[in-house]
Amino acid sequence: MKIKMYQKNEFDRIRNSSLSSADKWKLYSFMCRYNTIVSVKKAGSGHLGSSFSAMDIVVYLYLFKLNITKDNLKDENRNIYFSSKGHDVPGLYSVLYSLGILSLKEVLGLRKLEGLDGHPDINTPGIESNTGSLGMGISKARGMAKAKRLKKNGGKVFVLTGDGELQEGQIYESLQTTAHQKINEITAIADFNKYQTDRSVASITDLRDVTSKIESFGWHVINCNGHDFNSLDHAFTEAAKIDNKPVFIVADTIKGYGVSFMEPNDADTDNYKWHSGAPDDVSFESAIHELEEKVNYLATSYGIDSPQLSEVGLIDKSISGVSKEFVAQAYGEELCALAETRQDIVVLDGDLAADCKVRDFETRFPDRFIENGIAEQDMVSMAGGLALMGLLPVVNSFASFLSSRANEQIYNNACEHTKIIYANHFAGLIPAGPGKSHQSLRDISVIGAISNVVIMQPCNAMEAKQFTRYCVNETMNTCVLRLNIGPSPRIIELPESYKITRGKGIVLREGYDATIISYGPVLLHESLLASEYLSEHGIGLEVINMPWLNYIDAGWINELVSRHKKIYILDDHMQFGGLGHSLLATLAKNDLLKDISVTNLSIDTLPACGTPGEVLAYHKLSGAYLAKRIWPAFEHSSLLEQEVAYSADAPQ
Amino acid sequence: MKIKMYQKNEFDRIRNSSLSSADKWKLYSFMCRYNTIVSVKKAGSGHLGSSFSAMDIVVYLYLFKLNITKDNLKDENRNIYFSSKGHDVPGLYSVLYSLGILSLKEVLGLRKLEGLDGHPDINTPGIESNTGSLGMGISKARGMAKAKRLKKNGGKVFVLTGDGELQEGQIYESLQTTAHQKINEITAIADFNKYQTDRSVASITDLRDVTSKIESFGWHVINCNGHDFNSLDHAFTEAAKIDNKPVFIVADTIKGYGVSFMEPNDADTDNYKWHSGAPDDVSFESAIHELEEKVNYLATSYGIDSPQLSEVGLIDKSISGVSKEFVAQAYGEELCALAETRQDIVVLDGDLAADCKVRDFETRFPDRFIENGIAEQDMVSMAGGLALMGLLPVVNSFASFLSSRANEQIYNNACEHTKIIYANHFAGLIPAGPGKSHQSLRDISVIGAISNVVIMQPCNAMEAKQFTRYCVNETMNTCVLRLNIGPSPRIIELPESYKITRGKGIVLREGYDATIISYGPVLLHESLLASEYLSEHGIGLEVINMPWLNYIDAGWINELVSRHKKIYILDDHMQFGGLGHSLLATLAKNDLLKDISVTNLSIDTLPACGTPGEVLAYHKLSGAYLAKRIWPAFEHSSLLEQEVAYSADAPQ
Repeated sequence: MKIKMYQKNEFDRIRNSSLSSADKWKLYSFMCRYNTIVSVKKAGSGHLGSSFSAMDIVVYLYLFKLNITKDNLKDENRNIYFSSKGHDVPGLYSVLYSLGILSLKEVLGLRKLEGLDGHPDINTPGIESNTGSLGMGISKARGMAKAKRLKKNGGKVFVLTGDGELQEGQIYESLQTTAHQKINEITAIADFNKYQTDRSVASITDLRDVTSKIESFGWHVINCNGHDFNSLDHAFTEAAKIDNKPVFIVADTIKGYGVSFMEPNDADTDNYKWHSGAPDDVSFESAIHELEEKVNYLATSYGIDSPQLSEVGLIDKSISGVSKEFVAQAYGEELCALAETRQDIVVLDGDLAADCKVRDFETRFPDRFIENGIAEQDMVSMAGGLALMGLLPVVNSFASFLSSRANEQIYNNACEHTKIIYANHFAGLIPAGPGKSHQSLRDISVIGAISNVVIMQPCNAMEAKQFTRYCVNETMNTCVLRLNIGPSPRIIELPESYKITRGKGIVLREGYDATIISYGPVLLHESLLASEYLSEHGIGLEVINMPWLNYIDAGWINELVSRHKKIYILDDHMQFGGLGHSLLATLAKNDLLKDISVTNLSIDTLPACGTPGEVLAYHKLSGAYLAKRIWPAFEHSSLLEQEVAYSADAPQ
Repeated sequence: MKIKMYQKNEFDRIRNSSLSSADKWKLYSFMCRYNTIVSVKKAGSGHLGSSFSAMDIVVYLYLFKLNITKDNLKDENRNIYFSSKGHDVPGLYSVLYSLGILSLKEVLGLRKLEGLDGHPDINTPGIESNTGSLGMGISKARGMAKAKRLKKNGGKVFVLTGDGELQEGQIYESLQTTAHQKINEITAIADFNKYQTDRSVASITDLRDVTSKIESFGWHVINCNGHDFNSLDHAFTEAAKIDNKPVFIVADTIKGYGVSFMEPNDADTDNYKWHSGAPDDVSFESAIHELEEKVNYLATSYGIDSPQLSEVGLIDKSISGVSKEFVAQAYGEELCALAETRQDIVVLDGDLAADCKVRDFETRFPDRFIENGIAEQDMVSMAGGLALMGLLPVVNSFASFLSSRANEQIYNNACEHTKIIYANHFAGLIPAGPGKSHQSLRDISVIGAISNVVIMQPCNAMEAKQFTRYCVNETMNTCVLRLNIGPSPRIIELPESYKITRGKGIVLREGYDATIISYGPVLLHESLLASEYLSEHGIGLEVINMPWLNYIDAGWINELVSRHKKIYILDDHMQFGGLGHSLLATLAKNDLLKDISVTNLSIDTLPACGTPGEVLAYHKLSGAYLAKRIWPAFEHSSLLEQEVAYSADAPQ
């Protein structure tokens, strides 16, 4: 499918025209929305809802307040803008493109290896801060403003938050410290679009009267219409006059604003569809048509030539997973099955119920489902209280948030020797489109030193169901279930008679020259690919599925090293704290280090952003790369290409 | 020194007397305060300030609201009380003793191995929840109340918070979710004593109008005088009538209430002395004298016999560190020296400035010192903002809070490739009196998987100064400086010419039979002791100081294994993620596993609470135990005793 965009010269024309400010901004915003949806469609994923709700605020700031150009991006006296939530970055990229700060190639490379990250990253020109993990923005803005003061530099700091984001506790820490420390150079703006990932903010955790709430923390609060440029201008003009308090502008916005069917209607209270994800072809065509019409209508009504669209390339053919299996789906189904008889199961969620596959549980067992909003610490400690009273809480969120944001709370609960199941969704490197705030490569390490925790990662639906049962019925330990979020690149086959056994792995494919140990559908698939490639060259690479990530049976490993002296460990995790470390420790403990070689093939840098194939190749963890690392003589035509066409949609 | 206490029968007499309720409670409270100060004096450390401010609230609840007895501690319909802050637990223990729930032996065993933990622990009868890490209480209470509802059990949940604790963001998460979820069975009470660890709440981070703030989160707020039993009764009576909202009682209290010189005066705004720590002998005598007089005066005025004190034992002779060295003090001094020329250094603190030895910095460089209160996430993200603008933030808190509570924020900052120094104070097992919420045995593991971080732990003042300079001047990495908080048990001697070299350790004591690798003053002292013991038996145990905890030079380790095939690693950390794991990974990477044996001697359970000697022996990490583990034939008379009499006061 051919795609068109508004190129920079058309934005220059509008900016330099004699139109009134508000007219310029309005037209400019719709042109940016057009470009945003094209980039998200080309990426195959991204966040349109908040890109569109925040767009007018962003356009207003860049065109009127910031004076940011390609040449002053590092000027110490510059005004600074960044989004704390970061979801809205596709919209911001379009604005940065319109100003010549990003190139067309970059914007069309959204969520690609050589392109732009799915959440803001400091390496991108014009991006001031890494965000995407929620609630950090005002704290960071305060650091920036304080630094400007200490360095005697000019410039203000503008930081955008979401409204769902106001459920994060760090927001309130930062509100009170900022007021107390009198760092009044900050203007925070809430993109108050009333919908968070799953559904309306009011239904997840109502924020109540935000104005009086934020005022009670010592801020000056201004309300405005975030899609009315005169209202925005009025608000920011008032804000500029306040010098005795930091200012919080609550901008009333509409999620998905500008594309009629992306704006919420009453039926969306329980299921708003456009928080993330690329539109299908029909929706895409309909959306760009509507946006183009709006742009043309506005131009005509302002008496100027309609901005011209230019062809900029093609939408890549959509590539879908080679399997339809989602391990998390199997987990969710088994949880429902178990809950029929286990009345003590209570499921907690942090505004990711759909992604975490606990929607069915919510529907079937509403009394035992707790939607806790974007407040991971609170959710985990609430689970602690439930467990103390004899219930079995199952806590769901993305691994990078749950294990890290609520780390001290998880430890605190474990100190009470209760049993809690933590379902760490979106574990591992893939999908890699959302970028390093979402890819979870530290979650084993941050939990593994809790003495009574068992960490598991299933490789297919059958194993996911077995582990769910194991967690519920068979262990007294704190459980961490590490779950991939995307579709499995292939269905990893296990014998029908297979039964998980604590601390023991299972051979998936035989081989007599070396063995590779991995876990989860993504990297077991790559391991199997490597073994398949190598077998064509007469090299036998045994592939082992080892789903127990911090507990290794001594007898099992003893038997393994009697069979193989050359062991590779492929962690879907940073090397530090991964299975490799635990395996080495077990070998040392059992005096099995002699005469073996152990090679760790995991990740030791920050994870790259891109498509699955790109990123696996980048980290030299794709099947072909693994084959080459194990047997350097290996050559494969696709070594540097995307080997396996599986996509994984990028949530949140 | 002989000590006396009010024994249980005297409490029974008051409880069963015909005195009016308010009179009973008042007298009873002062008797509990007397017993509290005795237990803290005997322990050598503990928190008197908030034990005394909260005492009247606790006495009121236990005597009037809870109906908790030794026999119904696990009754599913019971009312539940716990303190979220947990500092006040010595006071709570006294109340539990007065009710026969704890024994005299237990109360006199405060902060001892077989006694009571320095912060609440679920294994103690009458303790409902592990606390001591701040801000979790309301979340946990909500879990308990929700569980009661699901299980159709009766009983309310009362949770006490501090006022300083209201700086923690999790509090606000829990306020809004509790109101939204309509879990109205909770009554939260703030022990509003207006002083936190270092100084007044208003001067650290002012909470402003707490009533309107908490009301804006949807709670019903009641104010009362927390030392006036009629006022308390009025507040709780009103609270009981509210069923459409959760209730928050703000109890106005006085820190240290009951002992005149422990109550703050105007000069204490900047330095309140009685948050933690046992009184010296003179203060102790004066305090118990004042409390006894108050008890007797009240009894007389109420027309009953004065409660009798009974001798209950002796205060152990105060044992002090064998050295006066504090590694953190050297760090603080060097930081000041560096700041003279490095104008970019900014120091951040989370209400632990005195313990973290940055008070001098605060005094000398007030513009570059940021007191951020008990808001670790906000502090770390603010540091991120400062670093983005080119400054060098040095972030201070206790290791268990900083590395864990702000874990995601530390990772987020590291993703920006700025340099930040995190000073992880109170790292490791000792002091062990505060208990498992404070002992930090996971901080290496939770940070180590951040790809560009370097983690170091100095063993003496000289090395601490070198590492401080290294962090500031010599590396581009994110730095984690792991610092012991107590006095060093001995001054670890290093050659005058010693210069830290990245990735390399240094031999402290030669030996030819085996080598033990450790770090930090506490466990190097034990390693040296083990070596000294073993040398008496002709066994040569080399002792190596290896202060680089996640980076090991390949050449250095190669040379080491050429010298020794028998290697012991002694981590002041859980085994998982400790130096041992990194060392094994380095050996594997360099193909050095052959023909060696590596034994990890670290900790693999939750840490015990007690005196340093007790706890080192409990975990079999004392010098004599180490000698025995290395050479099983070793016998030593003091194997099960406290070998080295060093104390370490237990802060926060």
